[in-house]
Amino acid sequence: MAGQIPTMALIVQKYGGTSVGNLDRIKNVAARVARCRAEGHQLVVVVSAMSGVTDGLIKLAKEIMPLPSEREMDVLLATGEQQTIALTAMALHALDVPAVSLTGAQAGILTDGVHTKAKIDNITPKKLHALLDAGNVVIVAGFQGETPDGQITTLGRGGSDLTAIALAAAIKADVCQIYTDVDGVYTADPRIVPAARKLEVISYDEMLELASLGAKVMQSRSVEFAKKFGVVFEVRSSLNDHPGTIVKEESKSMEAVVVRGVALDKNQAKVTLVGVPDKPGIAAHIFKALADATINVDMIVQNVSHGTGAPTTDLSFTVEKADLLKAQKVIEGLQSTISFREVIAAEKIGKISIVGVGMRGHSGVAAKMFEVLARDGVNIDMISTSEIKVSVVVDLAKAEPAMKALHAAFIG
Amino acid sequence: MAGQIPTMALIVQKYGGTSVGNLDRIKNVAARVARCRAEGHQLVVVVSAMSGVTDGLIKLAKEIMPLPSEREMDVLLATGEQQTIALTAMALHALDVPAVSLTGAQAGILTDGVHTKAKIDNITPKKLHALLDAGNVVIVAGFQGETPDGQITTLGRGGSDLTAIALAAAIKADVCQIYTDVDGVYTADPRIVPAARKLEVISYDEMLELASLGAKVMQSRSVEFAKKFGVVFEVRSSLNDHPGTIVKEESKSMEAVVVRGVALDKNQAKVTLVGVPDKPGIAAHIFKALADATINVDMIVQNVSHGTGAPTTDLSFTVEKADLLKAQKVIEGLQSTISFREVIAAEKIGKISIVGVGMRGHSGVAAKMFEVLARDGVNIDMISTSEIKVSVVVDLAKAEPAMKALHAAFIG
Repeated sequence: MAGQIPTMALIVQKYGGTSVGNLDRIKNVAARVARCRAEGHQLVVVVSAMSGVTDGLIKLAKEIMPLPSEREMDVLLATGEQQTIALTAMALHALDVPAVSLTGAQAGILTDGVHTKAKIDNITPKKLHALLDAGNVVIVAGFQGETPDGQITTLGRGGSDLTAIALAAAIKADVCQIYTDVDGVYTADPRIVPAARKLEVISYDEMLELASLGAKVMQSRSVEFAKKFGVVFEVRSSLNDHPGTIVKEESKSMEAVVVRGVALDKNQAKVTLVGVPDKPGIAAHIFKALADATINVDMIVQNVSHGTGAPTTDLSFTVEKADLLKAQKVIEGLQSTISFREVIAAEKIGKISIVGVGMRGHSGVAAKMFEVLARDGVNIDMISTSEIKVSVVVDLAKAEPAMKALHAAFIG
Repeated sequence: MAGQIPTMALIVQKYGGTSVGNLDRIKNVAARVARCRAEGHQLVVVVSAMSGVTDGLIKLAKEIMPLPSEREMDVLLATGEQQTIALTAMALHALDVPAVSLTGAQAGILTDGVHTKAKIDNITPKKLHALLDAGNVVIVAGFQGETPDGQITTLGRGGSDLTAIALAAAIKADVCQIYTDVDGVYTADPRIVPAARKLEVISYDEMLELASLGAKVMQSRSVEFAKKFGVVFEVRSSLNDHPGTIVKEESKSMEAVVVRGVALDKNQAKVTLVGVPDKPGIAAHIFKALADATINVDMIVQNVSHGTGAPTTDLSFTVEKADLLKAQKVIEGLQSTISFREVIAAEKIGKISIVGVGMRGHSGVAAKMFEVLARDGVNIDMISTSEIKVSVVVDLAKAEPAMKALHAAFIG
């Protein structure tokens, strides 16, 4: 089974900023690594900056200028993880475990030159293998790499997860464990749905949908990378020894479950253009303008034309709440060219999604979802579907009870 | 004259931890650099870690284990300067000055593998030249380098001065300026001798003697490096625009001054072995034992034999106060083999030195020094001389008045 660790395995473990947030926690990580090594495994340990360090450095930089050079931000931010690797290696030494730290560059992580959000192009794990073969635990700085001409780069949000998964692929690790402050991936946020339970296993695609739907466990890009290179990984807690959730390619048996999880995203806002002339090119015009303003649009729904004479339609889309004002301004700027009737913005909305690879083989999942919501008197504002997901936008006040009802109906 | 800057010069400037101790000071450094660049010069700026940062990191490491791995200490400590270079580059960008930061490794500073006190073996300033030629101010992290196989190293105390001087040699800079929080090198510590004045010029050898005699301006190794490669440098203040002190090879005209400076070292302690058998090999035995315990011995004085029968002698030496207890223990451990009569330790001593290359051509300098001290009723405990220096150990209570008297007699 994917959850079991072979004997004498090559293991990549990743510990996030909270797990290495102070010296006591770093010592805890070292103790966990030492126990694992005592079982006969070889270990590569990826660590983030101690929580707060990166934010503190960003604050310093922004006090100098609001938009600091991205190259220099990378030079600055890379020091956070560099400090953690040294301290973690020392904490292992204190337990008599041989350990050597490597920066991203030293670990052979080559990236493109897009500072603050670089992509990993290639990993040359020669030095890393040599250190492992010599009996060391190797501690690697997450979130960072270097360009072929020796510039320091960082990988952007969730970058340390990406480092761990990319390293696991490069060294063909038997196991990749992402340690975090939750026990794994849940069927729903347990703070909202008390009946939520931890999943033993989830497919990459389901994890991707959940990641982009407000379940904050991991960034999509790390999961995409794992999927692309077939890296099976486990999300688990650094605070206990419970098994976590295995993330892997879907299998036949996984399709037996229609809905794997229910997610709620409260961070969206809705914009509706009322009375838009229903003719070709209008939608393209609108969304080009939003893209030019670097506003990320999530759901888009266009209702059927109504009325006689010149046909008009209503067009709704959602954006992140933080982008709402900017989006309204962009749309108002289009009034003269598009001549819609009015713009309505709504902030108090919730987007509820059900996700599961089993939907592919089951019809009527969306119908059942709408039925459950109708029974509870929840009005649906927008609907969007994909192969393995159905999302609806509802009134924010009804979102949490609706989520509980859907969890009860689909998962139990 | 050495103090004048040619037009369109290539200048290396070094700013220590106090000069970059907070964001306002970093902005001040940037303003100074920007002014200098506006005059048409090319600039390489070497910076230290912000004051307090290195000590904070050392404290963290020692909380994990008392003697952390030196390799990992270097990985940890190198982050201090790396943060400063990024922030300094940003502060220059805020003034519209193109600037690029380089770590020690990126600047091509290759060292041996002696972690925490590495020696610079070689500098490959190719990248640095390319950045200068493209019109950038180049900001280099002081105190650090890397080994040929890519290990991060640090250069030990005073390492940032060394970086600046070695870079100035490697790129054949026209000018090398060491910015600090004092105006230059003084004839004596102005806090003790109000009549002390700033020197316009001093020779490497005089600077070396003063550095090792308690005048805390610079570490000896940086001055030695400058002397070896003929790097003329200026010690000056980052707080004002006063010219500083030029340090360079001695010239004929410098020999006209007999005594360049007077230094007081209060950090020494004296150990006297009374009644040591006066036979060959005893001194070697004692100082071998001290060296094995890594105790640095400064002055050594052996009095002539006295008494009849088996001849005995008294042997005194000085060590740093911090090493006194350790030294006493080492000596007590030798009692059974050497059978001296007793050990006396004295902590309340001061070592006063007069330094000047002019002494080479003048006789009677030591005699005049002793005369001045005798006139003031200062008893001399120990004497040691070199070609350009006379040092005496006196009672600590009399050291400061004695220093003033010597300054008045020799310098004015």
